[in-house]
Amino acid sequence: MPATVPDHGSASGGYVPTERSTPTRNRERAEYDRESVHAILDEDYLCHMGYVRDGAPVVLPTLYVRVGECVYLHGSTGSRPLREADGEGLPVCVTVTRVDGLVLARSAFHHSVNYRSVVAHGLARRVTEQDELTAALDALIDNVVPGRAADSRPADARELAATAVLRLDLSEVSAKVRRGDPHDEPEDLSLPHWSGVLPVSRTYGTPVPSGDLAPDTPLPGYLAGR
Amino acid sequence: MPATVPDHGSASGGYVPTERSTPTRNRERAEYDRESVHAILDEDYLCHMGYVRDGAPVVLPTLYVRVGECVYLHGSTGSRPLREADGEGLPVCVTVTRVDGLVLARSAFHHSVNYRSVVAHGLARRVTEQDELTAALDALIDNVVPGRAADSRPADARELAATAVLRLDLSEVSAKVRRGDPHDEPEDLSLPHWSGVLPVSRTYGTPVPSGDLAPDTPLPGYLAGR
Repeated sequence: MPATVPDHGSASGGYVPTERSTPTRNRERAEYDRESVHAILDEDYLCHMGYVRDGAPVVLPTLYVRVGECVYLHGSTGSRPLREADGEGLPVCVTVTRVDGLVLARSAFHHSVNYRSVVAHGLARRVTEQDELTAALDALIDNVVPGRAADSRPADARELAATAVLRLDLSEVSAKVRRGDPHDEPEDLSLPHWSGVLPVSRTYGTPVPSGDLAPDTPLPGYLAGR
Repeated sequence: MPATVPDHGSASGGYVPTERSTPTRNRERAEYDRESVHAILDEDYLCHMGYVRDGAPVVLPTLYVRVGECVYLHGSTGSRPLREADGEGLPVCVTVTRVDGLVLARSAFHHSVNYRSVVAHGLARRVTEQDELTAALDALIDNVVPGRAADSRPADARELAATAVLRLDLSEVSAKVRRGDPHDEPEDLSLPHWSGVLPVSRTYGTPVPSGDLAPDTPLPGYLAGR
């Protein structure tokens, strides 16, 4: 564990910054309070999980859910990182990024992106206890579509055995946030170029029933409202 | 470089699969043809770049653009990975993920996500040649907002010196794609749960002018059409 960086005080109850959770640039964008970190994590369900294999980095898109002070990561028992997490734990970096806007400055240099990201470092460990595993799987589904876990057939023993879940405790974690207008140089303000922010969001379309779904099957309320 | 896997033939002109670009699960979702890989890369501008620092993985959201058979990655000269790429190259894994739909099966186990992802492995090298650097920066901006590079003040010498761009040649790269309906077990088809796909897309809102923008500044055509 790297030494903590004393000049980055954490908010009361926040995550304690370490050398690797302190950005080398745009430090003013870093946030360590739990509320900010949780809020970003709770807005998404897809992270990018990095691990090291034969000395080289591997980054895979992975479903996740935050529960309290940990994130659960979904995989199958056949996947490489999950096999490797059976022992003392797999060193991972879990990164979640929400893009909120494209920032158009008058100068090419000051173009940017409004975003909120969380980066969490630590050892991911395979969840082996059955109650925790089933609760984590329910949470993973409800994080994608709230209310869905109770409206589907639960996993049976064979399916549970074929599913692997990793847990990463939230300890060495930071958020990074950029908001608002572009920051142009004063001498550029009179240039004729439009400047501002193009908002970006994730949206959901009309649900498409399976080809094998009985036509009179009602659309569940948790989908109708989305 | 790992040995190639002979049982995964590549399409004519496609990327040659290697051991680490061959998934251990859901192999039928892997694609190696250049058209599929390029099409996914060209739909996005934010990747997750992984590298190894002090033996541990680091994953950072990073702006990128594909140009021919390479991707350019944006950073500042102060950031850690870019400093480390000054020498013989930094081993990276660049991953781009597009989420197209949430897949709701009747069983919890068969829930899934429709997505298209690209994973590229290799050595990222700092771009030092000035013409390539300026062309890469223009391409990075135009990949986020097509037409914008020509409608902004170009970087001056000081700004160019403060900007770093990495190049990763596309060689060890694969796409992975899941499309279509959930795959329920035959015995689950009579269950009462709705099944199907909830489409997901990225959308853009109404452009928000900067607080310091002259009110009569026209909205450029490349934004009005978005």
